[in-house]
Amino acid sequence: MSTKNIIFTVLLLFVPISLAAHFLEWGDLVVFITAALAILPLAAWMGTATEEIAVVVGPILGGFLNATFGNATELIIALVALNAGLIDVVKASITGSIIGNLLLVMGLSMLLGGIRYKEQTFESVVARVNASSMNLAVIAILLPTAMNYTSIGISETTVQNLSLAVAIVLILVYGLTLLFSMKTHAYLYEVGVVDTEEEEEVSHEKPNIWLWSGVLLACTLLVALESELLVDALEVATSKLGLSALFTGVILVPIIGNAAEHATAVTVAMKNKMDLALSVAVGSSMQIALFVAPVLVIAGWVVGQPMDLDFNPFELVAVAVSVLIANSISSDGKSNWLEGTLLLAAYTVLGFAFYFHPVANSIG
Amino acid sequence: MSTKNIIFTVLLLFVPISLAAHFLEWGDLVVFITAALAILPLAAWMGTATEEIAVVVGPILGGFLNATFGNATELIIALVALNAGLIDVVKASITGSIIGNLLLVMGLSMLLGGIRYKEQTFESVVARVNASSMNLAVIAILLPTAMNYTSIGISETTVQNLSLAVAIVLILVYGLTLLFSMKTHAYLYEVGVVDTEEEEEVSHEKPNIWLWSGVLLACTLLVALESELLVDALEVATSKLGLSALFTGVILVPIIGNAAEHATAVTVAMKNKMDLALSVAVGSSMQIALFVAPVLVIAGWVVGQPMDLDFNPFELVAVAVSVLIANSISSDGKSNWLEGTLLLAAYTVLGFAFYFHPVANSIG
Amino acid sequence: MSTKNIIFTVLLLFVPISLAAHFLEWGDLVVFITAALAILPLAAWMGTATEEIAVVVGPILGGFLNATFGNATELIIALVALNAGLIDVVKASITGSIIGNLLLVMGLSMLLGGIRYKEQTFESVVARVNASSMNLAVIAILLPTAMNYTSIGISETTVQNLSLAVAIVLILVYGLTLLFSMKTHAYLYEVGVVDTEEEEEVSHEKPNIWLWSGVLLACTLLVALESELLVDALEVATSKLGLSALFTGVILVPIIGNAAEHATAVTVAMKNKMDLALSVAVGSSMQIALFVAPVLVIAGWVVGQPMDLDFNPFELVAVAVSVLIANSISSDGKSNWLEGTLLLAAYTVLGFAFYFHPVANSIG
Repeated sequence: MSTKNIIFTVLLLFVPISLAAHFLEWGDLVVFITAALAILPLAAWMGTATEEIAVVVGPILGGFLNATFGNATELIIALVALNAGLIDVVKASITGSIIGNLLLVMGLSMLLGGIRYKEQTFESVVARVNASSMNLAVIAILLPTAMNYTSIGISETTVQNLSLAVAIVLILVYGLTLLFSMKTHAYLYEVGVVDTEEEEEVSHEKPNIWLWSGVLLACTLLVALESELLVDALEVATSKLGLSALFTGVILVPIIGNAAEHATAVTVAMKNKMDLALSVAVGSSMQIALFVAPVLVIAGWVVGQPMDLDFNPFELVAVAVSVLIANSISSDGKSNWLEGTLLLAAYTVLGFAFYFHPVANSIG
Repeated sequence: MSTKNIIFTVLLLFVPISLAAHFLEWGDLVVFITAALAILPLAAWMGTATEEIAVVVGPILGGFLNATFGNATELIIALVALNAGLIDVVKASITGSIIGNLLLVMGLSMLLGGIRYKEQTFESVVARVNASSMNLAVIAILLPTAMNYTSIGISETTVQNLSLAVAIVLILVYGLTLLFSMKTHAYLYEVGVVDTEEEEEVSHEKPNIWLWSGVLLACTLLVALESELLVDALEVATSKLGLSALFTGVILVPIIGNAAEHATAVTVAMKNKMDLALSVAVGSSMQIALFVAPVLVIAGWVVGQPMDLDFNPFELVAVAVSVLIANSISSDGKSNWLEGTLLLAAYTVLGFAFYFHPVANSIG
Repeated sequence: MSTKNIIFTVLLLFVPISLAAHFLEWGDLVVFITAALAILPLAAWMGTATEEIAVVVGPILGGFLNATFGNATELIIALVALNAGLIDVVKASITGSIIGNLLLVMGLSMLLGGIRYKEQTFESVVARVNASSMNLAVIAILLPTAMNYTSIGISETTVQNLSLAVAIVLILVYGLTLLFSMKTHAYLYEVGVVDTEEEEEVSHEKPNIWLWSGVLLACTLLVALESELLVDALEVATSKLGLSALFTGVILVPIIGNAAEHATAVTVAMKNKMDLALSVAVGSSMQIALFVAPVLVIAGWVVGQPMDLDFNPFELVAVAVSVLIANSISSDGKSNWLEGTLLLAAYTVLGFAFYFHPVANSIG
C-alpha cells in the first residue's frame, strides 16, 4: 500500500469525527475543518472506484463515467451550497476551481516534477485540443459578466436568459467533446489509456464491479452528507477566520474539492508523466467550465435559486490572467521548476488580491 | 458549371425582384430580404471578375486589385449606410465582419473540412504574417474605445482626432503589407498563386479583360444600388423582426457582406486546402481592420458624418475574444471538426449576447 | 573606435553643458534636454563597465551585476523622481519602459535587422523562459490596478497593502530567476556568454577591474546628478511643450532611460544576432516588472511617498496590448521587416493615444 493510500485511509477517520463534531456541537469551525478533511479521502476513493469500474465496462462507457465523476466532488459541494442559497460561494467556487487547476495544480506538478527532472516534455495533440476547448469554455462562461460589466442597466432577467442560453450551448459542446474523444478521434487518446492500464495490471486481476459500484455509491452519499456539514458551518466558520465569501469560494472550497486532482497530478508529474499531469489540470478546468458550471445554472433555474453566470468582474480578470499564463507556459510543450514557480507565484498574487478584495462591493 | 455557379446565377433573379419590391412598395421587410439575396451573387461575380482580370494584368497589379476589391461589398454597404447616417450600424458591421470571418467562416471551414478529413494542416509563413498583421490592426482599431472606456470626460473631438490618427497609421501599414506581399517577400506567396492558376487553366484560355472589366463595373454599380435598397429598408425591417441596430450591424450585415468569402473558404476547405481557407478568413479580417475601417473613418470625416473608432465596449470584448480563440485554435497549424465546432459555438454564444444586449445603452 | 563609441564620447560633453544650463539658469527646457542628452552616454558607459567587471569576477557574480545594473539608469531616474514626489511620472515610466522595450526596441531591431536579412530566426529556450517570466511579472504588477478598476470603494490602504504584497512576491521570483539562470539551468545561457566573450577577446586583454569599478561608480553618481537636473526641470519643461505628465512618463522618460538598450539591441540585430536582441528587449521588460517596479514600491513605502501599483487603467490596456502583440510576433521564432514595422506601428498608435489622453482624468 502506497503512502498516499495510507494517508487517504487514515483521513477516513474524519468522517465519524465530523459527524460527532456536528451532533455534539463542537462549534462551526471544528465542523468545517473536519468535514473538509473527511471529503478529501472520499473524493480519492470515488476516483479509484470510477477507474476500477471503467476497466470492466470498457473504454466508451468507462470514459463517460470518468468524465462525469471526475468533478463529482466539486459538483456535489456546489449543489448543496446552491440549495442552501449560498450563490456567491457557488459562483466563486467555479472560477476558483478553474484558477486552482491552472495555477496551483499545474504549478505544483511542474515545480515538484521539475525538481527531479531538469526538463519535462508534454506534446500530445490531446493537450492542445483540451486547451482549445478550455479556452472556449472559459470565455463562454465569462461572457454574461463581460456584457453586464460593459453596459448600464441590464436587467437580471436578461443576464439569467443569456446564462441559460450559454449553459445549453456549453453542455452541447461537452457532449461533442465526448464524441470526439471516445468515437471519432479515440485513437488520439489511446496512449494514455494503455499507460494507466499497465499500472493497473501490476496491482490486480479484473476488478469486482459490484464491490466498486458499492464503494462509488457509498462515497458519493458520504460526500453529499459531509458537504451538508461543510456548507452549514461555512458562513460562521469563515467569518470567524476573517475571510470573505469571495475568498472562501475562490480559494478554500476549490482546494477541498480538487484535492484528489492535486494528488494525482503531482504524483504522475514526479514520475515524469507530464502529459498526464497537464491533462488532469487542463481537463479538470475544461470540465468545470463545460459541464459543472452549466449544470449549476440549470439546477439553479430548476430549484428556483437565481444562479447565473454573472461573476464579480475581478473574477473575470483573474480567470483571464490564469488562462493566459497557463497557455503561455504550456505552449512550448516543455516545463522546468521555474515555470512551476511562476504559476504558483501567480496563484499567490491572486490569492492576496482576493484576500484584500473589499467584501461589501465584491459580490453583486 | 458547378452547383455553386448555378446557385449564384439563379440568385441574380433577386436583382429585378428587389427592384420590383422597392418600386411596387411590397414592404420594407421584403425589400430588405430580396436586396440581401441579390447582393450575394453580385459579390461572387465581383470576386470572379477580379480574379480573371488579375490573371491578365499580372501578379503585381492583380494582387493589388484582389486586395482592394476583396472586401468591396462590405465597403460599399458601409459607405451607403454611412452616407445615410446609420453610424451605429456601420461601426457594428466592422467588428461584426472581423468576428464573422474569424469564428463563422473559419469555423465552418474547419467543421466541414474536418468531417471529410480526420486532420487538416496549414503551416505557411503567410498564415503567421497575416495573423500578426491582423492582431495589430484589430488592437489598433479598438484603442480609441479602450481609451474612452477607461477614462472619464473625454471629448468627442479627442476621440475623433485619435481615430483619424489611427486610421492614417493603419492605411500606411496596409500599404506596407502590400509592398511585403508583392515585392520584398513575394516568393512566400507564390505557392498559393500557382495553385489557383492551375485550376484556371483547366477551365479556359486567356480571359477577355474587356468583358471582365465590364462585369466588374456592372456588378459594383448593382451592389451599390442594392445596398441603397438594403440600407433604406434596414431600420424598419429589423425593428419589425425585433432586432436592435447592434445585432443587425454585428450579425446580419456581415453575413450578407461576407457571403462570398464563406462560399470560397468552405469550398477550398472541403478540398483539403486549409491554408487557403484560413488565408481567406484571416486575410479578410485583416483587410477590414487595416483598410475598410480606416477608409470609413476618413470618408465619415469627408462627408461630415461623425464616424470614429469608438465602439460599444462589449464589441471590444467580443473582438478580443474572437481573436484569442482563433489564435488559440489555429496556432498549432492543425484542425479537426471539433475545433470548427468550438469556433461556431463561440460565434453562437456571442450571437446570443448581442441578441440579449439592451439596445438603449448599447450604442454610445 | 566604433561610430557608436565616438557618438557616446561626444555626447559626454552634455554633462558640463547641462550643469552650466542649470547654474547659469538657461531655462528649464534647455536643462531638461541637455540633462537627457547627458544621461545617454553615461548609461552606455555604465553598461560597458558592468560587462568588463563581469568578465573578471566570473559568470556568477558577473551575471548578478549585469542583472542589477541592467536597468540602473531607469531605477535612478525613477528614485529621484519618486523622492521629488512625482509619483505619477514614476508610475507611468514603469509601464512606459515595458511598452518601449517590447514595441520600440524589439520593433526597431526587427525592422533594421530585417532590411539587411530577409528572414531572421531566434529560437532559444531562454527566450521562452524570459517571455513566460515577463508575462507573469507584467500581469502581477497590473493586478492592483485591475482590482481597483473593477470594484467600488477600495481604500488607498488596501491598494497599498496589496501592492507591497505583490512587490515582495515579485522580488522573490526575481531571486529565483537568477538562481535558475546562474545555477540550476546555467547551461542554457552559456551560448550567449561565449558569444559576447569572443568579441571582448578581439579588443583587449584581461580588463582592469579597479579602472572599470571607478568608471562604474563615477557614471552612477553622474547619472544620479543628471537625474536631479532632469527631474527638477521636468514639470516646467514638459508643460511648456504641451505634454501631460502621463505622456512624459510613458513615452519620454523611458526613451531616455532605455537608450542604451536600444543601441545594443539594434546593433546586434543588424549583425543577425536576433536571439540576443530579443533577449535584451524582453529581458529588460522582465527586469522592470520583476525588480525595478517592486523596488520602487518598497522605496516609496520607506521614504513615505504613497507609491503603489495602481496605474491608470489605460496603461493597463496599453501594457496588455504590447505583451499580446510582442508574444504574437515573436512566438514563431522568426522575424522580418514587416513584423518590425507592425511593432513600431503599435507603438505609434499607443503614443497618439497617450498624447490625446485627457490629463485631468488620466492619473488617479
